[in-house]
Amino acid sequence: MKDNETVLITSSQNAQIKFARSLDKKKDRYFHNAFRAEGVRHIKEGLDLNWKLLSLFVSPEVQERPHVKEIIQIARAQGARISVVSSRLLETITNRENAQNAVGIFVQKWAELDDFMDENTIVALERPKDPGNLGTIMRTIDATNCQALILLEESCDPYSTEAIRAAMGSSFAVKIAKANITDFLNWRTANGFSLYGTHVKSTKLHSETKFAAKSILLMGNEQSGIDDELANSCDGLVKLPMAGRADSLNLAIATGICLYEIWRQSGFQGRKS
Amino acid sequence: MKDNETVLITSSQNAQIKFARSLDKKKDRYFHNAFRAEGVRHIKEGLDLNWKLLSLFVSPEVQERPHVKEIIQIARAQGARISVVSSRLLETITNRENAQNAVGIFVQKWAELDDFMDENTIVALERPKDPGNLGTIMRTIDATNCQALILLEESCDPYSTEAIRAAMGSSFAVKIAKANITDFLNWRTANGFSLYGTHVKSTKLHSETKFAAKSILLMGNEQSGIDDELANSCDGLVKLPMAGRADSLNLAIATGICLYEIWRQSGFQGRKS
Repeated sequence: MKDNETVLITSSQNAQIKFARSLDKKKDRYFHNAFRAEGVRHIKEGLDLNWKLLSLFVSPEVQERPHVKEIIQIARAQGARISVVSSRLLETITNRENAQNAVGIFVQKWAELDDFMDENTIVALERPKDPGNLGTIMRTIDATNCQALILLEESCDPYSTEAIRAAMGSSFAVKIAKANITDFLNWRTANGFSLYGTHVKSTKLHSETKFAAKSILLMGNEQSGIDDELANSCDGLVKLPMAGRADSLNLAIATGICLYEIWRQSGFQGRKS
Repeated sequence: MKDNETVLITSSQNAQIKFARSLDKKKDRYFHNAFRAEGVRHIKEGLDLNWKLLSLFVSPEVQERPHVKEIIQIARAQGARISVVSSRLLETITNRENAQNAVGIFVQKWAELDDFMDENTIVALERPKDPGNLGTIMRTIDATNCQALILLEESCDPYSTEAIRAAMGSSFAVKIAKANITDFLNWRTANGFSLYGTHVKSTKLHSETKFAAKSILLMGNEQSGIDDELANSCDGLVKLPMAGRADSLNLAIATGICLYEIWRQSGFQGRKS
């Protein structure tokens, strides 16, 4: 039997099942340089955008459907392992009731800062903690004609299951680089990006700020906001107006509102719908 | 011993502990008409806004701190039960490691549609499914000078632990009514509100729409969007521009961007910072 023929797996102790399940843990994702994506549509996104698929699991109920046959065919051409597993085993992999009918394991991709030289808008997040926020931000980055995300210092993992789920397929469309603050600040100066941080102490609203053509939107950590060194290095500090009892917005909401404002100022360049 | 003197609880089988823990379940929240709020700051929010506190749990480590003594004093004056419980028992209640140092159990409040007659901006959500989204939306409603939320048809519970956590204290600042679609449409016509739904098929952008002084922003379900009857009844359908591979935004993000646009058009009326 060739490696990439479809095999039927029935045991939850099968090594492939254990491998797929282990990717819930950051250390296993790191060790294997891999992550899990769920659902035929999202797996198709990854394949369309040339992400390397290692392994594909589909349930017997859907394996003959045209769009499932299509991803099986692409997966086979890539040399990925293809397994048919029961819905119950898919639930075991995803640790979720009513699991998706397909699970794919992809190789992680990490960009370098220099890959972003030609971007117009970049989002930089300092030490984001919540993977749900991170995934939601990636979905919004993709939706606003951006492709570039920089994670500054120790951040939650964009390849965690929660982040991937929240990104709803946009993980495959956003390039992610990691950097420390010093390297990041040197890079953006050398490459002529203007840096805009959101800061509660700013007196200038997001909607009063004229964002430069090459902009980096910098958002601080959920609890502590932007580091002082970073704030002092910004070309502009902006704030979102606030009313009521709330003293801050959710990080993904604040990022989304700023991104739409930056995009609005460009006349929604690259808009598809 | 009087009912509202501070008692020390050491057993996880104590009836008060069991009661507090049971509020993770919707049927128990419904039966007791109660919900749980975590953290001294959020409990203080509830007390400041005159929500009825039934029971307060604090850890011994913090009970002498000034802001904790303050909420104990208000709780006592309200006739709430006050219990000192170990951090470990607080973790049992909240099912969370590194639990907050205080947990409060409050009585739920539900508004009627007629309570919203004098509002300027109201948010209506049709069948929202994700309590994290719902809580995040409440936080954003509070931040944008609104106070009114209508849940249409069968919706997830704004008093669930996940929603309360995501709302970050704003649950206490937002009035919530439930309605079916027919009653809702009749009420808004009778009370002169213009209804704006977000819809992928709209050709008009949010930023090109002039929102009326008395507006209801209507957002559809995460999966299926707005019901056809509702869409046909709208005074305006708006859409958010989209680029990239993403075909939609997260519900809380889309709501936040629309709310900030509506609020921008009012000159950020009621802005505090």
